[in-house]
Amino acid sequence: MAGSIYGDIFKVSTWGESHGKGVGVVVDGCPAGICLCEEDVQKFLDRRKPGETKYATPRKEADEVEILSGVFEGRTTGTPISMIVRNTSQRSQDYTEIASYYRPGHADFTFDEKYGFRDYRGGGRSSARETIGRVAGGAVARKILDELQIEICAYVTSIGEIEIDRAKMSIDNIEKSPIRMPDLEASERAEEFLCEQMRGHDSAGGVIECVIKGMPAGIGEPVFGKLDAALAQAVMSVGAVKGVEIGDGFAAAKASGSYNNDPFCIGPTGNVEKSSNHAGGILGGMSDGSPIILRAAFKPTPSIFREQQTVNKSGEQICVQIKGRHDPVIVPRAVAVVEAMAALAVVDKMFVGMTSRMDRIVKFYRSDT
Amino acid sequence: MAGSIYGDIFKVSTWGESHGKGVGVVVDGCPAGICLCEEDVQKFLDRRKPGETKYATPRKEADEVEILSGVFEGRTTGTPISMIVRNTSQRSQDYTEIASYYRPGHADFTFDEKYGFRDYRGGGRSSARETIGRVAGGAVARKILDELQIEICAYVTSIGEIEIDRAKMSIDNIEKSPIRMPDLEASERAEEFLCEQMRGHDSAGGVIECVIKGMPAGIGEPVFGKLDAALAQAVMSVGAVKGVEIGDGFAAAKASGSYNNDPFCIGPTGNVEKSSNHAGGILGGMSDGSPIILRAAFKPTPSIFREQQTVNKSGEQICVQIKGRHDPVIVPRAVAVVEAMAALAVVDKMFVGMTSRMDRIVKFYRSDT
Amino acid sequence: MAGSIYGDIFKVSTWGESHGKGVGVVVDGCPAGICLCEEDVQKFLDRRKPGETKYATPRKEADEVEILSGVFEGRTTGTPISMIVRNTSQRSQDYTEIASYYRPGHADFTFDEKYGFRDYRGGGRSSARETIGRVAGGAVARKILDELQIEICAYVTSIGEIEIDRAKMSIDNIEKSPIRMPDLEASERAEEFLCEQMRGHDSAGGVIECVIKGMPAGIGEPVFGKLDAALAQAVMSVGAVKGVEIGDGFAAAKASGSYNNDPFCIGPTGNVEKSSNHAGGILGGMSDGSPIILRAAFKPTPSIFREQQTVNKSGEQICVQIKGRHDPVIVPRAVAVVEAMAALAVVDKMFVGMTSRMDRIVKFYRSDT
Amino acid sequence: MAGSIYGDIFKVSTWGESHGKGVGVVVDGCPAGICLCEEDVQKFLDRRKPGETKYATPRKEADEVEILSGVFEGRTTGTPISMIVRNTSQRSQDYTEIASYYRPGHADFTFDEKYGFRDYRGGGRSSARETIGRVAGGAVARKILDELQIEICAYVTSIGEIEIDRAKMSIDNIEKSPIRMPDLEASERAEEFLCEQMRGHDSAGGVIECVIKGMPAGIGEPVFGKLDAALAQAVMSVGAVKGVEIGDGFAAAKASGSYNNDPFCIGPTGNVEKSSNHAGGILGGMSDGSPIILRAAFKPTPSIFREQQTVNKSGEQICVQIKGRHDPVIVPRAVAVVEAMAALAVVDKMFVGMTSRMDRIVKFYRSDT
Repeated sequence: MAGSIYGDIFKVSTWGESHGKGVGVVVDGCPAGICLCEEDVQKFLDRRKPGETKYATPRKEADEVEILSGVFEGRTTGTPISMIVRNTSQRSQDYTEIASYYRPGHADFTFDEKYGFRDYRGGGRSSARETIGRVAGGAVARKILDELQIEICAYVTSIGEIEIDRAKMSIDNIEKSPIRMPDLEASERAEEFLCEQMRGHDSAGGVIECVIKGMPAGIGEPVFGKLDAALAQAVMSVGAVKGVEIGDGFAAAKASGSYNNDPFCIGPTGNVEKSSNHAGGILGGMSDGSPIILRAAFKPTPSIFREQQTVNKSGEQICVQIKGRHDPVIVPRAVAVVEAMAALAVVDKMFVGMTSRMDRIVKFYRSDT
Repeated sequence: MAGSIYGDIFKVSTWGESHGKGVGVVVDGCPAGICLCEEDVQKFLDRRKPGETKYATPRKEADEVEILSGVFEGRTTGTPISMIVRNTSQRSQDYTEIASYYRPGHADFTFDEKYGFRDYRGGGRSSARETIGRVAGGAVARKILDELQIEICAYVTSIGEIEIDRAKMSIDNIEKSPIRMPDLEASERAEEFLCEQMRGHDSAGGVIECVIKGMPAGIGEPVFGKLDAALAQAVMSVGAVKGVEIGDGFAAAKASGSYNNDPFCIGPTGNVEKSSNHAGGILGGMSDGSPIILRAAFKPTPSIFREQQTVNKSGEQICVQIKGRHDPVIVPRAVAVVEAMAALAVVDKMFVGMTSRMDRIVKFYRSDT
Repeated sequence: MAGSIYGDIFKVSTWGESHGKGVGVVVDGCPAGICLCEEDVQKFLDRRKPGETKYATPRKEADEVEILSGVFEGRTTGTPISMIVRNTSQRSQDYTEIASYYRPGHADFTFDEKYGFRDYRGGGRSSARETIGRVAGGAVARKILDELQIEICAYVTSIGEIEIDRAKMSIDNIEKSPIRMPDLEASERAEEFLCEQMRGHDSAGGVIECVIKGMPAGIGEPVFGKLDAALAQAVMSVGAVKGVEIGDGFAAAKASGSYNNDPFCIGPTGNVEKSSNHAGGILGGMSDGSPIILRAAFKPTPSIFREQQTVNKSGEQICVQIKGRHDPVIVPRAVAVVEAMAALAVVDKMFVGMTSRMDRIVKFYRSDT
Repeated sequence: MAGSIYGDIFKVSTWGESHGKGVGVVVDGCPAGICLCEEDVQKFLDRRKPGETKYATPRKEADEVEILSGVFEGRTTGTPISMIVRNTSQRSQDYTEIASYYRPGHADFTFDEKYGFRDYRGGGRSSARETIGRVAGGAVARKILDELQIEICAYVTSIGEIEIDRAKMSIDNIEKSPIRMPDLEASERAEEFLCEQMRGHDSAGGVIECVIKGMPAGIGEPVFGKLDAALAQAVMSVGAVKGVEIGDGFAAAKASGSYNNDPFCIGPTGNVEKSSNHAGGILGGMSDGSPIILRAAFKPTPSIFREQQTVNKSGEQICVQIKGRHDPVIVPRAVAVVEAMAALAVVDKMFVGMTSRMDRIVKFYRSDT
């Protein structure tokens, strides 16, 4: 219940601190028979890895994953998949100072209040390294989605005030942009802005959009188990996320019903479709067959190299200047994390959704066994 | 798993359709010894009741709650509290027509896809009447919060494009405004706007803000069990919500770190406080002692009395005009629902949070028993 | 978490006290499309109803179930099924005396210790009436098992020292015996024994055996989610059960491996079968295709009309003689409860088991939607 | 949901196969502030380690545990504790043969049915090595119980037909007996019996009794969350367990109520006590302050070196003789596993039990924070 386990059927149990021996995840509830090797996981870990651009911490971590269990002769066995990434580049001495005070915008104070003390080295469990377990678990979820022909793609739509122009956006641009913006012009302007922020010893936030394609309609459970509610929880649980919206999101609150309602129509394949997608692919908490669209707002990195007012453990107001290695913007690296959380949420709801109709259950059990 | 149960320790299990025999909730995990009577629940149900203003459906429902179990001699016994509200004003004949087609913006299509058929009368389980169970369960949660001196207050900050002016806002105004806007000038303008929308056979959405005061610091579990993630899930699970944000939310994504970081200081009582609250009372997923602030974006009511394009079950594109009794705006009535969901999320996390420190557990068990 | 909700996917949430307004259950996670009416539930409630024979409490309860939600046009909709049985025959005055002391063998003392006070009328939530919710929920589970051609049948194998002779046992005898013993000779002797116990103001326990036929192999999850572990939990949660065993159970602890191992063979239909069934149909926590066999030991009814030593709330040792209406033996009525719990456990594990193989999941989603 | 996660609040997530890279566990929900080092865990692992006596497999494993996370400066931090034991002594070649057929009494057939294939090396996830994760997780639970002054002690009461004489039993004898029998005379006879079984290429089962002392009264949740139900599930989930009983267990089914009811009395310290303990310390599913007593029946080890009838994957009936390294009796080593499972169940219920009374919750939060 301490909150490091996610999922109802497809469960991931993550562990590890920034400056402990490593970080990892145990996946329980992965079906048998999926081809899985370390490279399947590594490619997603590489996308969230620091040290790739100047906008990320220069801390260099190999972040090499080792699969310890649950795979036999190249295929998942249905039993728990344990994965570990050893920490290698730790400079704990950078952090001894912060043991004595609370960094603004960080979880130092709340960890101390909750637990009575904390592992202050690099934020301990509130470090961005915690997301390695999410991405590794998400990589397994994505193998499942691959087999179900469901695609997940996230990218950056804004950094600070710089937003992409949807007319100039192309999915192919995402990996061409060092900050994963699918509009390369906006990307360039955002990079300039980031350099400015770095020069000013400041940081920036941004927005990530995530699109899920290929979902069958009817996934998600009415009332508390809605798909959008699950996605909101999954994505809001990522550090630094302060807002989540589906489809038109906050803009929908300003629209009229006549505009916001998506008309149903018969699509080219004869299926029921919607002729617009203000709903972002979810109606009544269930997928409606259109692409699912969500956006997450990330606050600016709290670690800035300016002087800041804070309080130390002796209850004195002090002025501090944080040292260490920190990203001026977390958003580009967080793209992989948002995708991972979306994958975990979707797989879990797909699995839950298998028991919604008696006729399908009968067919499953009476023809398959 | 079908999604009508909420909570890990303080659990509510809701049930009921718009046009069935009634709606209700079973609360499992309520501590013993709380004074509870039907009036404690009724007062919150009355806040979400339709038929109170011209901006709500004229369907008149008594919505009288009956407590069936779990209370003895005026106090909760620690065993399940079952509550029921019988449906009384049902005009199912209004709905027979919609059995044959999918209303735009509604869950008709997704219900059919998920379950193979649906209770089409009044939306069945996707009706706003479903929220009665939430509000009744939330009322019990609020009795717990009362004893812990934690307050929850929600109100409408915008309807369509009309937003409150924070300088003119007063909590005392909320119940003076027929649409629960704490700025009475904005409220008047919003009412005019709503009348206009009604005349145009259209509808409106809006934003609800919810403030939680008195939370001790350290509530919420790191990683997936974060307090903000739980609140996002809880509130996004309410029908028509398309976005949730905490503190500065999406605006934080545009800010610089130097602005967004809340400095810590020593408050007048000698406690650690924050001198601003961009974080909305949550750092690292745990309460930080400042008021918790969240906002939810509601889409405009999908039931509008205009002609709309849609598809019927025979796969034909048709033009329909919805009949029945519908709110032109759901937001004012949803205030009670948002408060209820916040209460449910907070109580559950408070209960989970009791096991975070061994010294406190020892003190609990070795002195109390 | 207070323990009145059972199941991971197919969830039942029971509520109600002996002398409150009623008892009931909410079933969440029932698939859509199952024919369900009150008679489907009533017939199982009738099997556990008191007042049928002289070996059961003369309290007469109609125990009529009302379905409040989740069924539309005779079929389950996939949304929560709420069921209620109103209490009608309550003589609370019988119980006012026991408010002041702890009945031996009852939960009076432990309820007081846990909650600080208790609903003392008829045992409150620890009354046998609590099992109505189980049986009603189990009735829905059995409709699912019917469609999957899985049968559950329980009966009494012993009362006190009187055991059935397996050579004389016939399933057809169960309902012919007033105490549900499938060997009518043993049944008669057990009845005599019960009359004796009643004359001596004493009570008796016994053993119930439950057989589950038609389960596909491979149901149950390795390690903690084993099918036998789930059945043990489900059945041990029934009041008065003090032991549970699978297959040869405690006798297996005395056997040699060469005797206890069931050889595999090819059955008449060409399937893999076992030529004996010491394992009781479960190997490694998963069903093996043979009938599942479990036995539950019930202690004698603690309510006896003899003088007993106990303690009152003022801390005095006193001598008491219990009044009220009580069964001299609970076992025959508990047959329906054991069947219900077995059904709930099996359905839940069948549903969980649908995600064990990727090939089946792909087939489910890519051909059905 | 695949069943390798145990607990509602204090959760353990185990992983690992017999012949994979290792086995381990992640503990989520451990309170902060507990002194914990590898030695605290190692001492319990050593108790279940093979190769200690001639009655256990000669496979020599160091079984050295490494703590990877969740501990800082010698104390638990409240975040997940990941522990790993690397496999070192693997002779997979012993197992290639069994890939082709189903060993009687083993989970080979059911694994294949469930997952379509299996990791056949040493039983994969159904190996006794799986219990290392349980024991390591249980070791953390026991640190918690130490602080709450709750003791757990298990021992062997019978091997085959040889039972201990309770008059000659002493807890001090347990570790003096190579098979953990607290009556050394019975232990000697049981050893002779085991030698005989080994000579006959056969195996034996037995019964383990577990006593839990120091529990406050009122732990366990009425209805499905009963303490005895939780213990039954926990212990039945251990491989080879075929029966579980509490207190007098199956013998209670033969007793009269007048014998089986434990009278309440005032103990020497002025507390309410019971003058006998047929109930085994649990009334109505809640601890009653007396020692909790449970017994688990273990079947004989299925791996025997005799010829056995079985079936291979081509559907042929064959005669096989199993090779490899196997314990003639698993019971003595399982003592540590039963204790671990009892510890996990008890800690989880203790944590759940903290929210049963509002007055205690108020005291917890209003005085401590």
